[in-house]
Order: sequence, then C-alpha cells, then structure tokens
Amino acid sequence: MNKNQFAVTPPMGWNSYDYYDTTVNEEQIKANADYMAANLKKYGWEYIVVDIQWYAYDAGSQRDRHQYIPFWKVEMDEYSRLLPCPDRFPSSRDGQGFKPLADYIHSLGLKFGIHIMRGIPRAAAHNHTKILGTELTANEIADPSSICFWNPDMYGVVTNREGGQEYYNSLFELYAEWGVDFIKCDDIARYDMPSAKKEIEMLHNAIEHCKRPMVLSLSPGPALINQAWYYEKYANMWRITDDFWDNWPLLANMFERCELWQNHVSEGCYPDCDMLPLGYVGKGFGGERYTGFTKDEQITMMTLWCIFRSPLMLGAELTKLDEWTLSLLTNEKVLGLLTASAGARQIIRNKEQAVWLSKDIAEEAWYLALFNLSDVEKSIKVTQEDLPQFVLQGIQLEDLWSQELIENAGASFESKVAPHGAKLYKVYKNA
Amino acid sequence: MNKNQFAVTPPMGWNSYDYYDTTVNEEQIKANADYMAANLKKYGWEYIVVDIQWYAYDAGSQRDRHQYIPFWKVEMDEYSRLLPCPDRFPSSRDGQGFKPLADYIHSLGLKFGIHIMRGIPRAAAHNHTKILGTELTANEIADPSSICFWNPDMYGVVTNREGGQEYYNSLFELYAEWGVDFIKCDDIARYDMPSAKKEIEMLHNAIEHCKRPMVLSLSPGPALINQAWYYEKYANMWRITDDFWDNWPLLANMFERCELWQNHVSEGCYPDCDMLPLGYVGKGFGGERYTGFTKDEQITMMTLWCIFRSPLMLGAELTKLDEWTLSLLTNEKVLGLLTASAGARQIIRNKEQAVWLSKDIAEEAWYLALFNLSDVEKSIKVTQEDLPQFVLQGIQLEDLWSQELIENAGASFESKVAPHGAKLYKVYKNA
Amino acid sequence: MNKNQFAVTPPMGWNSYDYYDTTVNEEQIKANADYMAANLKKYGWEYIVVDIQWYAYDAGSQRDRHQYIPFWKVEMDEYSRLLPCPDRFPSSRDGQGFKPLADYIHSLGLKFGIHIMRGIPRAAAHNHTKILGTELTANEIADPSSICFWNPDMYGVVTNREGGQEYYNSLFELYAEWGVDFIKCDDIARYDMPSAKKEIEMLHNAIEHCKRPMVLSLSPGPALINQAWYYEKYANMWRITDDFWDNWPLLANMFERCELWQNHVSEGCYPDCDMLPLGYVGKGFGGERYTGFTKDEQITMMTLWCIFRSPLMLGAELTKLDEWTLSLLTNEKVLGLLTASAGARQIIRNKEQAVWLSKDIAEEAWYLALFNLSDVEKSIKVTQEDLPQFVLQGIQLEDLWSQELIENAGASFESKVAPHGAKLYKVYKNA
Amino acid sequence: MNKNQFAVTPPMGWNSYDYYDTTVNEEQIKANADYMAANLKKYGWEYIVVDIQWYAYDAGSQRDRHQYIPFWKVEMDEYSRLLPCPDRFPSSRDGQGFKPLADYIHSLGLKFGIHIMRGIPRAAAHNHTKILGTELTANEIADPSSICFWNPDMYGVVTNREGGQEYYNSLFELYAEWGVDFIKCDDIARYDMPSAKKEIEMLHNAIEHCKRPMVLSLSPGPALINQAWYYEKYANMWRITDDFWDNWPLLANMFERCELWQNHVSEGCYPDCDMLPLGYVGKGFGGERYTGFTKDEQITMMTLWCIFRSPLMLGAELTKLDEWTLSLLTNEKVLGLLTASAGARQIIRNKEQAVWLSKDIAEEAWYLALFNLSDVEKSIKVTQEDLPQFVLQGIQLEDLWSQELIENAGASFESKVAPHGAKLYKVYKNA
Repeated sequence: MNKNQFAVTPPMGWNSYDYYDTTVNEEQIKANADYMAANLKKYGWEYIVVDIQWYAYDAGSQRDRHQYIPFWKVEMDEYSRLLPCPDRFPSSRDGQGFKPLADYIHSLGLKFGIHIMRGIPRAAAHNHTKILGTELTANEIADPSSICFWNPDMYGVVTNREGGQEYYNSLFELYAEWGVDFIKCDDIARYDMPSAKKEIEMLHNAIEHCKRPMVLSLSPGPALINQAWYYEKYANMWRITDDFWDNWPLLANMFERCELWQNHVSEGCYPDCDMLPLGYVGKGFGGERYTGFTKDEQITMMTLWCIFRSPLMLGAELTKLDEWTLSLLTNEKVLGLLTASAGARQIIRNKEQAVWLSKDIAEEAWYLALFNLSDVEKSIKVTQEDLPQFVLQGIQLEDLWSQELIENAGASFESKVAPHGAKLYKVYKNA
Repeated sequence: MNKNQFAVTPPMGWNSYDYYDTTVNEEQIKANADYMAANLKKYGWEYIVVDIQWYAYDAGSQRDRHQYIPFWKVEMDEYSRLLPCPDRFPSSRDGQGFKPLADYIHSLGLKFGIHIMRGIPRAAAHNHTKILGTELTANEIADPSSICFWNPDMYGVVTNREGGQEYYNSLFELYAEWGVDFIKCDDIARYDMPSAKKEIEMLHNAIEHCKRPMVLSLSPGPALINQAWYYEKYANMWRITDDFWDNWPLLANMFERCELWQNHVSEGCYPDCDMLPLGYVGKGFGGERYTGFTKDEQITMMTLWCIFRSPLMLGAELTKLDEWTLSLLTNEKVLGLLTASAGARQIIRNKEQAVWLSKDIAEEAWYLALFNLSDVEKSIKVTQEDLPQFVLQGIQLEDLWSQELIENAGASFESKVAPHGAKLYKVYKNA
Repeated sequence: MNKNQFAVTPPMGWNSYDYYDTTVNEEQIKANADYMAANLKKYGWEYIVVDIQWYAYDAGSQRDRHQYIPFWKVEMDEYSRLLPCPDRFPSSRDGQGFKPLADYIHSLGLKFGIHIMRGIPRAAAHNHTKILGTELTANEIADPSSICFWNPDMYGVVTNREGGQEYYNSLFELYAEWGVDFIKCDDIARYDMPSAKKEIEMLHNAIEHCKRPMVLSLSPGPALINQAWYYEKYANMWRITDDFWDNWPLLANMFERCELWQNHVSEGCYPDCDMLPLGYVGKGFGGERYTGFTKDEQITMMTLWCIFRSPLMLGAELTKLDEWTLSLLTNEKVLGLLTASAGARQIIRNKEQAVWLSKDIAEEAWYLALFNLSDVEKSIKVTQEDLPQFVLQGIQLEDLWSQELIENAGASFESKVAPHGAKLYKVYKNA
Repeated sequence: MNKNQFAVTPPMGWNSYDYYDTTVNEEQIKANADYMAANLKKYGWEYIVVDIQWYAYDAGSQRDRHQYIPFWKVEMDEYSRLLPCPDRFPSSRDGQGFKPLADYIHSLGLKFGIHIMRGIPRAAAHNHTKILGTELTANEIADPSSICFWNPDMYGVVTNREGGQEYYNSLFELYAEWGVDFIKCDDIARYDMPSAKKEIEMLHNAIEHCKRPMVLSLSPGPALINQAWYYEKYANMWRITDDFWDNWPLLANMFERCELWQNHVSEGCYPDCDMLPLGYVGKGFGGERYTGFTKDEQITMMTLWCIFRSPLMLGAELTKLDEWTLSLLTNEKVLGLLTASAGARQIIRNKEQAVWLSKDIAEEAWYLALFNLSDVEKSIKVTQEDLPQFVLQGIQLEDLWSQELIENAGASFESKVAPHGAKLYKVYKNA
C-alpha cells in the first residue's frame, strides 16, 4: 500500500470537537452525517470524524473542573483496547464497537473517522490486562513516564521492546473490522519526545499491517519543522498549530505557519491548519455561540486554507448551518483549488498584507490570493517584480468569491480589500 | 515548633540506598543499626534511614529491566497511604507499620528515618481509595500530569484545591505514630515545577500538624539556587547534586556546588552534598564493590563535607566496615567541624586547587582546608592577600588528619598535598 | 589591603545619572556636593559619583537618536586612557583630569567616585595608541568581539594574553593620582561572558596594585547568582537589577531580588538595589519630573533598601530637594539599620505582602518591616509560627517612621499598612 | 530581473578558501582559473571565487594568533568601500579594483565571484568616511552593536534609517563595474539577528538596483529553516552547515541537514552543503595536506551533493589535481544530476544507511542513491514498500560511477556498498 494514495487531495470533512467538545453521541453524529450527505457531499466533503473521549463515561459532566475527568471509567475490551461508551453510542453494545455507526456513514456514501490518543490506557497498565496475540500484559508495554500533559487517559508504549507494535496492530485490526477510514491521533505531534516520534512510525506500520487504507492525521500541533521528513514518510496530515479557534490573532498567525510549511504540501502529505470554526460552535465548552469571525475573516480563512491546500475539517454544527456559511462551503471554484492547484507559494508577507500564488495543474492558469492583514481597508498591489515568473500585463482575472471578471491592462495589479479580508483570483493570460 | 531546632547541627547517619538499592529488609536495617549503636553513635552518628521502595513487592526482582517495577503491587492502607511491604518488613504486619522497627532503633539510642516519594500512589488514584478525614477519594486529589520521570509509583497532589494538605497530614500522623524522626522526600527538589514547590510547603505543614519533630530532607537535587529561600523556610536539608557516587569527576564537581551554596548553611538549614559512598557499596545495583575512591579522595570528601557542614549520611554497609574507613568516620576533630565551626567560605578555587576557611564558634581559632584538585602532588600556598581577615604570620596549625603540629613563621603558608587529596588544619594565633 | 575594609557598611551617596543622564558638568557636580556637605553629610551620605560619558564630547546632543553617540569624539590621553571632556569639566584641562574636582569634593569632607565602562576605547584600538608601561598598543589588547550592546565606546580587553592587566593598572594609577574613592564599572555584571568575569578580577588587581582604597561597584545587573562568590571575592557592590526607576512594578519586583540575594550581604559585600529615584529626576532623559513614586512607595523603598542593607545612592537633583524628600533621607533611625543591623531575612513573601526581620548588632533588639504589596490598605500580621526564633508576646515596638511606641500583648502582632506602603519597627523585649 | 534566472541550475565553481585561507593572490587566482578553463569548464565548472580578506594588508601574517588581524590596515576608497589589497592584487591599483582580474576570468569563458562580509568597515565608521550618493558618513549608518563574532572588520548597517540601502547600492554599483558575477556574503546566515535578516533583503535590492545579474550566496550557516522563505525570496544559495571540512562526522551529519532542507531546492534556490575539500587543501591554515576523506567517502560526498543538487564549489588547489580527483569532478553522468534531475527525496535514513531518490526531468527515468553510513561493508536493500511510487520489478539500473548495467528481476533491489561509500544508479523501466 502507498499511504499517499489514501488522500490524493486534501481530506474534507466534519469533526465533532468544535461544537461538542467531549460529549458527542451517536444520534448527533448521524444528524451531522445526514446533513453532509444531503447538502455537502457533492462538493467533496466526505469524512465524519468522532473526536476525543468517545470511550469515556460521564464525559463533560465535570466541565467546570475537568475537560477530561481523570481516573474515571472508560469502556475497554479484554485486550486493553478502548471501545465506544455505550451510554452515548448504544449501537456499540455487544461487541459491535463503531461498526454499526461506520456502516451507517458508509451507507450515506461518506467516510468514517475516529480520534485516538497515543498510547495504551493507564487503566489497562494498572490492571495488567492482556495484549492481543502476545503473552504480554499492558503493564509490560506501557511507559510510565510517557504521558500526555493535558489528557490523563493514556501511557505511551515502550518503543525499545517487543509488544508496542503488536498492541498498535491489534488496535488497527479492530478499527479495520469497524470500517474506520480516518484516524486522528492526538498527543503525538508537538513535543520533541523520542518515543512519540517512534509511535508515529508504529501507527503507520499498524495501518499497513491491517491492510485497510486509513488516512493518518497527527495532532495537536504545532508539528516540528525539523521532523517534516518523518511526518511526510509516515502520515497524511499533521497540525501546524495548536488548537485553532475563531479569533483574529490566531488567523493572522496562520500566515506565518503557512509560510513555514509551504514547501511541504504534496500528494498524500498535508500540513494541517486545523478545523474551521464556522457557524455554531462551542456548545460542549460552556455555551453554543456563533463564530466570532467576521464574514471577511471567514473569507480569509477559506481562501488561505484552499490555496495552501490544507485539509478542510468543519467545526460547525451542520444541522444549524445558515445560508451564508453554507455558501462559503459550497463555492466550487474556491474549493476547486484543493484538487486543481499546486505549488502554492507566499509572495509577500508583512504586518499589513500577504499575497499567495499557485498554479492550476491542468490549464495555463494561476491563482492569486490577496490578504489584508490590517484593520483598515487597503489597496493591495502586486508588481511585476514581485512575480518575476509571470507576466502581469494583459492578464484576465476571475474573482472566485464574487465571480467578477477583470481585465488587467497595466504592468502591475491592485485591488481594494476589506480589513482582515481577502480576494482570490483565477488568472488567465489574455489571448 | 521551630523546624530549625530539629537539626541544630548537620544530621549524621546511615542510609540503605548505596548498598541495597531498593532491596533492604528489616534484618539488614537492624544489623546496620546495631553496628552504629556499638561503634559510631558516640561520634555523633544517629540516623538510620530506610531508603526507596520499602512499600513495594518484589523490589529488585527485575533489575535488568527496571530499578522500579512499574504498575506493580504495593502495600497500602485503606486511606491511600503506603505501608512497609511485609515480605521484607515482617514486623509491620497487622497494621504495625514501621512502629516495631522504629522502636528497635530508638531502643539503641538512635533515630529512625524513611524515604518517601512526593505525592499519592498512582494505584490509589486509579482505585479511588479514601483520604483520611475527608469525603474525598484519591482520584480527586491526584494530579494526573504531575509525575516523577524516573519512578512510576506516584502522582503529585493537587495544590489549588482542598484535599492535598489533608492527605499529607494523614501521612505524617501515621509516621508520627510509627515514631519517624527523619523524612527524605524524593522527586521534589530539582525540576522547577510549581506544584513540587508547593508540596514542600505542604510537607512542612504536615510536620507542624502532626506535632512530632521530623527532619525534612529534600531530593534528588540539584536544588535550585533561586528557590533557596523556600528551602530554608520549609526544610532542613536539600540535595545540591543529583545522586553522588564514588568517582572523582563527581567529587571535583562538588567544589563548584559548595561555592554556590556556601552562604546558605545555617542552624537547621543544610545544603546537602549527598551520601558518602565509602567501604562496600553497590550490592543492590548489580554487585557489591569496594568504593572507587582512593584514600586521598576519601580524605578530600570528608574534609569538604565537614568544613562545608553538609549532612553526613553513610552509604557503606556498616557490618563490613574496615579499619581504614572506620578511622575516617571516627576522627573526632574532623567531625567536630559540624558542631564547632561556622561561616565556611571558599577562598580560592581554580582547576588546580581549592582553599576553604571557617571559624570556630567557641575559641579564637580557624579551620583551613587545602585541596589538591590536580592529578599530581602540589604545594598549595595561601598568602596574606588571600586571607586579609586573618594574620598568617606566627600561626600554629594542627593537622586534623595527622595530628601533626606546625608553627608558621612566614607571611604565607604552604603545604604539600597529594593528588586529589586534602589537608585540614585547626589554626591558632601563636601566643 | 582588604577590600572589605573599603566599605565596612553600605556606601551612601549621590550619582548624577537619574537626573543628568550623560550631560552632567563640573558646576552641577559641585552644586550637588555643596548641598550634600551642608545637609546630608552628617547623616552618613558621603559619595559624589560622576556617572557615564564624562569623557565624551557633545554628550546628550543627539538624544532623540542616541543616548550614546557612536564613533564620536572622546577625550583620551596618549596611553589609551579616557579623560574628562574639558567642555564640561574645565578644571581637567592641562592634564589635570579629575584631580581638581576630586580635591574640591574632598575639601567638603566627601568622597569622589566615577563611572567607567569595562574595557579599552574602540578609538584607541583603531588608532593603535600606546599602553603605559608596555611595548604594546591598544589594538593588541582590545578584543574585537567583546563589546557592550548598549554603549558603543569600548572593547573588552584580552584576558588570555599579556597587556590587559597592565592597561587596567595604568587606569587605576591615574585614578589614584586624581584621588578617586569609588569606581562604578559598567557592562560587567550581567551577561555570562567569560571575559567580563575575568575583567572583574583585573579591576580588583588594579586597585590592589595602585594601593589607594577604592570601592568597586559593578553594573548594570542583574548580577548572576551563580557568580556570587566571585563578586564577593573581588567587588564591594553589584547591581541585582537592571536600571531601577520610579514605577511600582520595578519596586514590587525588588522583593523577589532581595529574597534571592539576602544571604549575600556582609562586610564589604553588598548586593545593590540601585539608585533611589526620588525628588526631581529625568532632566537629561527628555524632561525633569518629580518622582513617580507615591509617598508610601517611597517609604517602602527606603525601608527595604535599609533593612536589606543595600547601598544608598541618591538619584535626585539635590539642589531641588523638598522637605518631604529630605525627611526621608535624614531619618537617622531608619538609616541606622545600614550600620547597626545584620542578618536581614525575608519571613513572608506572597503577592499581597512581605515581611522582613533583622537583628541589631549591639543591643538585644530586632527590626521588623511589614510591606503591603497590594493595592488596598491591609492589616499585616505576623504570628509566632512565622517567627519561631523570637517571642512575640510582650514585645515593645518603636515605629521608626512615626516614632510611635507600641506594646504588644498578644501572641501575634499586626498593623494596618497603606497600599504599597511599609512599616518599620525596632522591637525590644518588654522588661 | 528574476533572481532565479541567475542560477537556473546549481552553481559550479572553485573557491580560494579551503586551500589559501586569507592569503590568496592574483597570480594564484589566475592559475586556478587557467586550469579550470582548460580542464573543467566543459563539465560545467565556471565560477572562480576570491574568498575572505582580499582587502586586508598582511593577511595571514599573524596566523598563530589571528585568522583575521583586528584593527589592521585595509584598502578602502573614499566612500567606505573596501578595495583589493594591491600587495596581493597588483592589477587593482589606480582605482581598477577587481576589474582587470574579472576581465581575465571572463576572457577564459568563466565567471568571477568575490566574498564580502555583511556591513560597513569598522574603520570607516570610526573615520567618518563618506557614503556615495548621500550626505551621510559611515558613522551614521554603522550599527555599533551589530558585529561579527569571528571577524573584526565590519559593523552591520542600520536598517531602520536611511543610508544602509544606499551604502549597499554603492557597493554593488562598484561590483557591477568590476564585472562581478557571484557574491558570497558572510556573517549573514546563522544567527537569528533581525538586522542580519534585513540585510539579506538589502543585498537583493542592491543587485536589482545595479542591474547586473549576480548570484547571491549566504554564509556561514547553518541557515535557519524557519527563515527558508526569506532565503528563497532574496538569495540563490545559503549554507546549511557551518564550515565543512574533510572528516567523516561532518559528512555523515550532512545527511541530516539534507533531510531537513530537501523540500527547498528549486530553480534559483539552493541549500548549500559547502565546499568540496578534495585534493590538496589547507595550505593557508598551517600546512598543505591531501584531503582526509577516503575514496569511498569522496564518492559519497559527490553523490549526495549531486542528487541533492547542492552548489558544487571546489576547495582543492586546481593546479595540483591528481587523476583520481579529476575523475570525480568530470563524471558527466554524475554531474548531470545537477541539471537533469529534480525532486530528490530521502527514502530511508538511520544510523547505518541512507537512500535517496530523484526523477529525471526529461526522460522516464529515476536516480537512486544508496549510502552506507556504517564502518563495515553492507548490503543495502530497498523494497517495494520503501518506494511505493515506483515499480522495482523489472527495472534496469546503470551504475553511474562504474558504468555497469544491472537488470533487476526481483521485487526488491539490493547492492553491496563499501564502508562510508555510495552507489548511484540511473534507473529505467525495462521494456
């Protein structure tokens, strides 16, 4: 298997975290999947991902004190493998796991993903439960000093002795039985812990071993640029930030991160700008709210993610999508950059503005994105000197958000852009 | 209570670690105590300290793989408090804990100490066992991200909520019942973790609360100089190095550490140079061996520890002490510096040599120590300029190791010192 | 010579920097000296220190762009030694240097100090000027990579070859001829540059060599606690902060710094809290202003500096001193702590309050300082547990700022303290 | 101008540093150029670069003490611009500068390059010399705190005020007059100094301004990966290591650096592995020596540099080239990778071996490099799983060093490789 074939273009989907935090249940997953199948699938959206704590009892019940309740009951099989909590995922009872839910998602023509934490449950280590296909028990393969600092559920596995790979293999055999298409593994791409690096390789091996293609997504970020080769070899996407939320400083900062990672986007390899906190989000975090981004900021976000070719994972509650947000998510020409463009490069970045350029892979056409990073309307200008590889005079530009067509007669091109806003053009040589 | 009164001079004793690692048992503790009572007590040696893992079953049985076996059985009461493992401490059965052993030690006229790890057992947290005197359970006061990186037994306690202090109080109530005189708390003086700092204060409070004076010793070191005030306020001694062993580079390095901490020695407050790896050590670590220090290095170590006024904790198996080592440990004039001197200051330190000076607290006399840090015999010289506070001409020097008396006529003083060796003088103005 | 005898108690004086920046001239120095002799000398104030850039032409004339004008004309003798700029120090002409001014200061019964930058003038290095008493020229002893990052005047000297010590000796021979009593050497106590450390020793040697006692003060700070032994061996005072100015956050922060350095105050060795920005300051920095400290903050500052036994260097323009400020600087009982107390220790410090205690060296009396670090009035309380070395019940307290006498009947003591304010008591056992 | 057009493939040339250190003269430059024109030009070698200190008098004359003599005489024009030292470059007299030498080089059909240090001469700043085309003098644009830590000649220029760009423009106008084709700017790509970063942009602007294409090469390295976008925007090549010399640890380490930078090689943008220390080197450093690399190591170096597409700059004295070395430098098939391949990626790297793969840009062919990083002969194997993008079965391989042809029947491919050696294959699908 060639892992790059699992995601020949950046994955597009929905993830439960931004709206539900740790609390999502089966019915809610299905409702979002139904919406996606009916309204978004035809635009390329296809993954439905159940995020963190699906194995935990009482998740969210102590939210004032804990996001993740420590030392609490988790659903686990005899082989130290976490299972869906039947309180929230009733179809998982009787050893069914996520298979019934995955089957449902697949029946809609969509793909099914789950979040996992790196490692083996602490409960398993302390209870000496078995590891499938070995004579070992969990205490023998759990590394007591390899912990996650923000989630109390797991220990990393030993990487210098037998047992760790076998444990990961057993996990992915189960996920393959369930029909999982996408794995978001957390606590694995940020700290420069040697063991976490080795566990990325183990995850890859386990996917190869189970023989079911699964997209491998690494979190929480920021991933380390000096391990880029490693991510590209073993994973499909890796977060280039810590959790992204709906405020301007985080969005403005993403330009710096995209600059850093721009040379690392290729087939099956996607630096990940994280979920899109659009529409309604935040319910599980203390209260539902409409995204804090202005419309212009939303256009900036969609434009950057698309020209950079980040994976697109919706954070919005889909059943509450308004017309405006839906229009953002169904602009075929903008989304088209994920599949039809390549080689995006930053041309200019300073405190006021950023400019990106990429090439269409089929036609003699370019994409040009202008971003206004300042707090006032600005005319953003690109000159021939900024774009030496490209003749500006006599180009025709199609504004992909407004559909307007522009003829550019001069030797430079400029356009007014709203504060925190963006313009995205498809550029043709004029005949 | 004034904690500084618990140790008006630097504590002197024996600790099981250097010889037994994690494996010491009751019989061995008693044998060492018997030896101390018979041979060392009259020179000031009085503490017998049971070091790490006394609560653990099978300690030392997987030494090729683990110094501390993770997720293994520990002896614990219903209140989340660790108890001696009855396999190695038979007298602790039936809820006796360390009381019978402490009683035995006390019957010899000695004092009894134990090692503890900061925090609450991981097993308690996962099993939700009770906290004495509260409605809380261990999972509610264990901090899942506060771990020791080299020992898998404990979680730190929460410091921003109720329960942590109550837990420590319950521990020290038990230790007071047992008759503990000395607590060596580990995993608490090295990393600059805010929680570990707070737990030092909690330990102090628990000693005050239990109303039994107990010397509080902090490990593993190196303690942080910028927290010196904190240590001085709450503890009696704190390690200024990581584990010290019998090789010259570690001993040479101690001069730099003593330089750093020299102004922090006072009644009840002792920067700690760690155990004395003399005589036979190492059995629990893979094989008994005679100390790797030369005789001159041993004299250097004893001289530095004594003039600096470090606590003196023997690492040797006492029942195997040879005449030479015994003579080192029973030189009353040298040991006398612990109680009769003050204000030790480094006068010179370079790669070749070090010189220290301190004052007798009762007489008009000084102590002068000359150290040869080089690999060849050297004549070490101090001039009037090095010691402006002190008239060199006409002094009388008593060599405290050889008992020789020297008259110094000149304006400077010098003496030949063996490679890695030391001279220690008591200095009187000549009449 | 014993350098600790040069300052048996913390130096008290005035320094030109806080008011004049780089611009002070001879007339202004004399006016401040006259005021000191007439009004402050009898309270212990005695040093008059000419701060930075006395050798520079046009100092202050490009203040919008440069505090220190780079590559500008400096007054220098044929031996690479900086001399007073005759434009501002007319009496220095004809090779007189600072001698006439020093003579004047001495004639008032005061002592004379100057600021110097570590190293040798860059101009000397580039012009290959001579080094007195050697065959060398400045280019041979200047280290081209040892520079000050905020002042462009000097290169550090080479420390591994002949010439550097000879240069410093030549400097101090000149200063001795002039009659200098106090050297504030800058760019030498902050960065952990090995060469700067070595240059401290060279300064000390040069003072010994010139045979005139001169107090050696090191700047800019914060000095490094791990080099404390070095400072104590070679210098008399060393800054424990970067430049201190008249705003509350800097003053509140000083408590943390005094905590760190409290064990390092002894005869001839003074961690230095920096100048007192009282009265009128700032003229050379862009505009004269009255200190930004409230009266309570001024009391806090004086109380902390005095109980800690920091050197006291006035930053105020003395000729403009108001009654209130003068009263602060002439409270004999408060200033008395510099000479009559010892062993000051912090008892309590948290975000709300700090408490310090020290002992009178002659009488059976203590000093107790209560500091309110919060923004509201607070009752600050000390209990017997906080002060185990000391019986609180039945003490008599003399408020050294208000002169009020208090009898304390209870087992604890408390007092209301203004926001950012302080109380300072001399405490006697009641008969 | 499009700076990427200045070097559409990686530059190939010779540099004086490895053999001559600071001492090279005109005659030696010409002798090496003559050799290149006669023997190497036809293989693509074309740049002749005069490295560091060409403006310095007496360079190399104090080599026991200084590589770069501080504060020494340099040749400079009235506009603060360094000129060739006429002692070593006689043709530069009478204001000719490097023009005569450049003309000579050009007459051989080669290109001419020079080394410069970032910034403006310290001597100019101290002497207030003029800046061409402005009213400013050097002291006004030199930044006194922006120095090079290993070379004493220059100050960085101010970047927040007028004058710096004008100075750089004046330099490059002069270099354009001389006929310079290649600039190696030193002290500019390693430390994360904001000013140095800005000076890269100024150099680029100055090249644009002078209108003569010049390849811009940045040193000393290691360049910072998080500034990659910046280097790619403004420069043509940047060192990814500190100085590279002829020892195996440095060569083995280069694999890690190439891994880090592999995604950053593109037209006009070359991460630079540094000079090739082959043949005779080291004369100026204290003694001529034959390269310390074994023949296998030399093959490894050439193979890695060529598949990675690093610039190739010879360090050898060309007039002393032996047959073996010449054969390394004239293997057209190996050198062909610089122009005919693209997209090189590391496939495997561990302590024992490394494997790289790239694609021919014209034919349906690949390049495969196998490296033995261990100290013993090893059979290095690549499997279908290592190369999922590529069918191994039935390929034909041409060994580019031995010219041998191999048919690969199996599903994997392996080959014996000498210790520290390499194999390089051009791979075709078998018909």
